[in-house]
Amino acid sequence: MRISELTTPALLVERDLLDANLATMSAALPGPRLRPHVKAHKTTALARRQQASGHSGFTCATVRECEVMAAAGLGADLLLANEVLDARRLGSLVADGARVTTAVDSPETVAAAAGGGVREVLVDVNVGLNRCGCPPERAGELAAAARSAGLEVRGVMGYEGHLQLVSDPEERKRRTGEAMALLQAAAADVGGEVVSAGGTGTYRDNIWATEIQAGSYALMDTAYDAVGHPFGQALSVLGTVVSVSAGHAVADVGLKALGMDHGLPSIDGAQVRRCADEHTTFVRDEPVRVGERVRVLPAHVDPTVALHERMHLVDGDTVLETWPVDMRGW
Amino acid sequence: MRISELTTPALLVERDLLDANLATMSAALPGPRLRPHVKAHKTTALARRQQASGHSGFTCATVRECEVMAAAGLGADLLLANEVLDARRLGSLVADGARVTTAVDSPETVAAAAGGGVREVLVDVNVGLNRCGCPPERAGELAAAARSAGLEVRGVMGYEGHLQLVSDPEERKRRTGEAMALLQAAAADVGGEVVSAGGTGTYRDNIWATEIQAGSYALMDTAYDAVGHPFGQALSVLGTVVSVSAGHAVADVGLKALGMDHGLPSIDGAQVRRCADEHTTFVRDEPVRVGERVRVLPAHVDPTVALHERMHLVDGDTVLETWPVDMRGW
Repeated sequence: MRISELTTPALLVERDLLDANLATMSAALPGPRLRPHVKAHKTTALARRQQASGHSGFTCATVRECEVMAAAGLGADLLLANEVLDARRLGSLVADGARVTTAVDSPETVAAAAGGGVREVLVDVNVGLNRCGCPPERAGELAAAARSAGLEVRGVMGYEGHLQLVSDPEERKRRTGEAMALLQAAAADVGGEVVSAGGTGTYRDNIWATEIQAGSYALMDTAYDAVGHPFGQALSVLGTVVSVSAGHAVADVGLKALGMDHGLPSIDGAQVRRCADEHTTFVRDEPVRVGERVRVLPAHVDPTVALHERMHLVDGDTVLETWPVDMRGW
Repeated sequence: MRISELTTPALLVERDLLDANLATMSAALPGPRLRPHVKAHKTTALARRQQASGHSGFTCATVRECEVMAAAGLGADLLLANEVLDARRLGSLVADGARVTTAVDSPETVAAAAGGGVREVLVDVNVGLNRCGCPPERAGELAAAARSAGLEVRGVMGYEGHLQLVSDPEERKRRTGEAMALLQAAAADVGGEVVSAGGTGTYRDNIWATEIQAGSYALMDTAYDAVGHPFGQALSVLGTVVSVSAGHAVADVGLKALGMDHGLPSIDGAQVRRCADEHTTFVRDEPVRVGERVRVLPAHVDPTVALHERMHLVDGDTVLETWPVDMRGW
């Protein structure tokens, strides 16, 4: 199939860029040094490619992601890097032979993990993001509570998400070190082997974690442009120009095809003016014709992917494979 | 089933508010005066409720919406209020007995409609939104081209989307009148019976259109709060508090469960600080406990709905019905 035959809007993944991104990351963080985060693509076919690059442990953000990964045979070592109050579906996966570790940051989440049939946990520590995670000084006590509840505590996790888009490399590295000092102190109190942290923005800076939870590196988005990185923008949304006026043109890619929390998407060689439910309005010096195909680059990949049923792996004008985005929903 | 048994995040629709919204709108715009826009809910079960309120014609934004409406037996008079370059799927619906009218604003979209097997069109006119739509003075010529191509031209449409959130009622009414003067001039050139326009923000102001394409009124969102209206916020996203810290709490409702283009969601009695992929961080004076359920109100309903597989019609703590959001995708 050719790209020109696709119904738009359609998610395109450039095969060469994807493979280069995977290879670059796997060279920097081989095997278990990387625990790819599937929330960035929600696609088991892509996770399988990451597995083929040497990574058998994965990070998930939702129970559904764990379920679909396990069902796809990718459940050898899943980390739900998130708190959950009803862990029974995770317990079912464990009972069926998957290895699922979940994050805990409170007595309630410890009780939920133990009650739901999960056997292994990481203590989630707030390293400065100020979202989930217990205070570093409470990590040891929480680990003891987890062990009392019969859980195996594999170690700690702590996501320095507030540092992913710090553009100055020296500042990013220094602050990552400060955040990881908090996590290492907690790890000493908690015990276990695992110190899980990091992301695409800090994958080179975070030399303290035993494993890095990067996800965006595979497909990339324009929000990371401010941070120097060696990854190519592999994901775009293919659109069709449906209307052309004197001062602007409109493509059929809108709010329901684009994650908008990081702002407007971009189109190479054009200025994007605004988006509506099914439309992106843009201006281009070069003439635009009705029916022309355009590539719209989302500012944030993760919520963009969650809006699409499938993504197409492409090379030039050829559609090589079509992958269901099979980890959507909860 | 009780709300407390639902997996979160989950879309909730308050039955009483929904029914009141539908009744209020149907009283103001009875029968064919309203052509409900399904893009705001993407749910045939809800469209069926709108049909039961007296409206048999519907507005769609995508080909998929037309297909699913027709398959659900709601295809008596569908308007695709959008331009399309490949109309063959619409033509198939027409061949199968649905009535589908599509918008055209260029020779290319006229050719696509005729070539795809669509029989009826509206000429889409730019009334100041500056998105799709031909200049008013070109509408007559386009209608002639459509008729030459064998198409039935039912009239015109022109969406005053730029006026939906104008908060001053006098200004909104005056400017709606100016926009509709452009549309009426085009209608005189085009001929036909239909003058289709309007939305929830201007449904009372637009006394010139023969039918109003309102959609948001059914579920409503907080973006319309600036505009005085009689509709209740029927839609919310139910979340579970998964983490509580000294200064904030976190619910499991994030960017993948919320349309973010109109900004942050809100939580009654709390201040929302930020959202991440699967999290909303908020602050509340009243204590928050882990496991507590919260209702998150999205700033923009339409893209929020597109992120969910289903919505639950609720009354108090009871889940009355669960409806698939069956018009997602393209």
